[in-house]
Amino acid sequence: MKTQSFIPPSRTLMGPGPSDVSSRVLDAMARPTIGHLDPIFIKMMDEVKALIQYAFQTKNELTYAISAPGMAGMECCFANLVEEKDKVIICKNGFFGERMKENVERYGGIPIMVEDEWGKKIDINKVEEALKENEDAKIVAFVHAETSTGVKSDPKSLTKLAHDYDCLSIVDTVTGLAGIPLLVDEWEIDAIYSGTQKCLSASPGLSPISFSNKAKEKIKNRKTKVKSWFHDLNLIMSYWEGEGARSYHHTAPINALYGLHEALLILSEEGIENSWKRHLDNHILLRDGLENIGINFLVNEDDRLPQLNTIFIPDGVQDAETRSRLLNEYNLEIGAGLGTLAGKVWRIGLMGHSSNENNIDHCLKSLSEVI
Amino acid sequence: MKTQSFIPPSRTLMGPGPSDVSSRVLDAMARPTIGHLDPIFIKMMDEVKALIQYAFQTKNELTYAISAPGMAGMECCFANLVEEKDKVIICKNGFFGERMKENVERYGGIPIMVEDEWGKKIDINKVEEALKENEDAKIVAFVHAETSTGVKSDPKSLTKLAHDYDCLSIVDTVTGLAGIPLLVDEWEIDAIYSGTQKCLSASPGLSPISFSNKAKEKIKNRKTKVKSWFHDLNLIMSYWEGEGARSYHHTAPINALYGLHEALLILSEEGIENSWKRHLDNHILLRDGLENIGINFLVNEDDRLPQLNTIFIPDGVQDAETRSRLLNEYNLEIGAGLGTLAGKVWRIGLMGHSSNENNIDHCLKSLSEVI
Repeated sequence: MKTQSFIPPSRTLMGPGPSDVSSRVLDAMARPTIGHLDPIFIKMMDEVKALIQYAFQTKNELTYAISAPGMAGMECCFANLVEEKDKVIICKNGFFGERMKENVERYGGIPIMVEDEWGKKIDINKVEEALKENEDAKIVAFVHAETSTGVKSDPKSLTKLAHDYDCLSIVDTVTGLAGIPLLVDEWEIDAIYSGTQKCLSASPGLSPISFSNKAKEKIKNRKTKVKSWFHDLNLIMSYWEGEGARSYHHTAPINALYGLHEALLILSEEGIENSWKRHLDNHILLRDGLENIGINFLVNEDDRLPQLNTIFIPDGVQDAETRSRLLNEYNLEIGAGLGTLAGKVWRIGLMGHSSNENNIDHCLKSLSEVI
Repeated sequence: MKTQSFIPPSRTLMGPGPSDVSSRVLDAMARPTIGHLDPIFIKMMDEVKALIQYAFQTKNELTYAISAPGMAGMECCFANLVEEKDKVIICKNGFFGERMKENVERYGGIPIMVEDEWGKKIDINKVEEALKENEDAKIVAFVHAETSTGVKSDPKSLTKLAHDYDCLSIVDTVTGLAGIPLLVDEWEIDAIYSGTQKCLSASPGLSPISFSNKAKEKIKNRKTKVKSWFHDLNLIMSYWEGEGARSYHHTAPINALYGLHEALLILSEEGIENSWKRHLDNHILLRDGLENIGINFLVNEDDRLPQLNTIFIPDGVQDAETRSRLLNEYNLEIGAGLGTLAGKVWRIGLMGHSSNENNIDHCLKSLSEVI
């Protein structure tokens, strides 16, 4: 058959991301492409920077959007902050801790793993033990919102602990940003990255990122060049920072940035605290509805991400077949389990534009019908 | 002032990229976001792969679009194909040869530079000398279409030479693809990358890429892991290759891929040979018009890229001020000179959707008025 224009169906996206993208953001992405060095585009980039600073609650100068997805944001942090033989404490309580380990090893560092069970939060005492045993550790890295399990951790305490032992913190908030409280400056986080396709509800493909001055100093004073040219912040700083002319590094993803600008604008109009509250309120609605039909959560209430609800697949219910029916008959996407949780759980996202009562009703009704 | 939705002006993009994006492609990017593991999306990705294979004129299985701009495509080739201490012959006749050197060094290789003047094509005899002097060289890397100068090189002869000396070839065709003849299989090119924002006229942000089986074997048999997790093709192969389920690597940039799909579809509707011919015909039109108003080209006719016309700024004409007037008064973007050519030349792109008679008329008329 001859290839034709691609007309996707209209899904309700309640998996672990992407979330539903609003028509405002879709419309923004369809506006005319202009040059990446056009003064009008550069002014828009300044606004994107200010809006990301707002979302992260930071004044960090080195705050921008990487021209690649969240996983590139992770790589950027480790590529820039890890030098040969640096010890990095990695708190692993799900899939993404393992990714961090891969990154540290590839960039020549030594990962020190502190492991907790999938579905449990990070045990801060174990982290302190690891820091005591590794006095020369340079970094503590952890996931704010584990997309594989729906568990939140405590960046404030973990960063404080890292600083007590003279370490920097690297925080993965791909799924956290705009969904649960996050105060980058107040909590003194050193490096943090996110994605656009979770609670910001822009299309996937960019990674908001921010570095403290302390992190920036470490990057400026590296003994060796960053292995990745694309990620070398020493090159990128001159492009995003300061007023006026930007030196050419790479061509920015123009239309994707239009979309991110609009998504961040929507967030600023709602107000970040209101966004956190909406995510929590809607979690409670969904939770009550799920419990009514006898469905149980993997994570205990206190450690649960409101934007990502990991539930046990009810006994006797087929995993893939049921998700397939939800998708094909109800246009509803929910997420499968990852890694050790595959086949055991589903992940129901209530992220960004997807976190609303209509979606919750649709999800509960559809689930009740198919299981 | 409060931040508002970003409404860009309608420019005519005749710089070195991005080029004008057609309303078909803009509309495609505004279609509803669906999940990156949705079977319907995966089917579209298969079509994107087939369409990229068509654009490159290759049957290479390892052909896909990197989720980041062309410069990441460059990094992906070097990150995967260069191992510690590998000698890489780099043909440098402009800005992007220098970038290749940076990449080789960072990934632990030894760059052997073969330099030609900016604005001249690669001297194949010098490359052969370098290969004779470096019998242990592993790779020959060069730029098919130098975006900094508007010079084309000869991938067929250079790849044949590389193979004669038991080397692989890495080819940068960021500006070349769809603008001038390129036959990846017939010319036996081993690794090649491009961008979306030049002669394909999709929005910037993705990098079409393709690897021969020989290159793939080298990657599979690496002695050390690829330093960059994001770029490790051993991980990515399982995502893009073969039928059926794709293992999760990163979230694909959904809407950007809708746009690329549509842009590639437009190319396949026109036919690749017709696209090459249109770029050449329009270059001749523009050239005649420019010569009529006394403007001279940097590059001699035979080595000139039809899609990127590098012209000397006429005596007594201000560079930045004139480009600024063209942008503000005529909504026309043309490119400045890069590197050693800054202030001396302008670069006028006739790429993809921008390569048409209306644009040529608008450009000639505007230029005549401001200079």
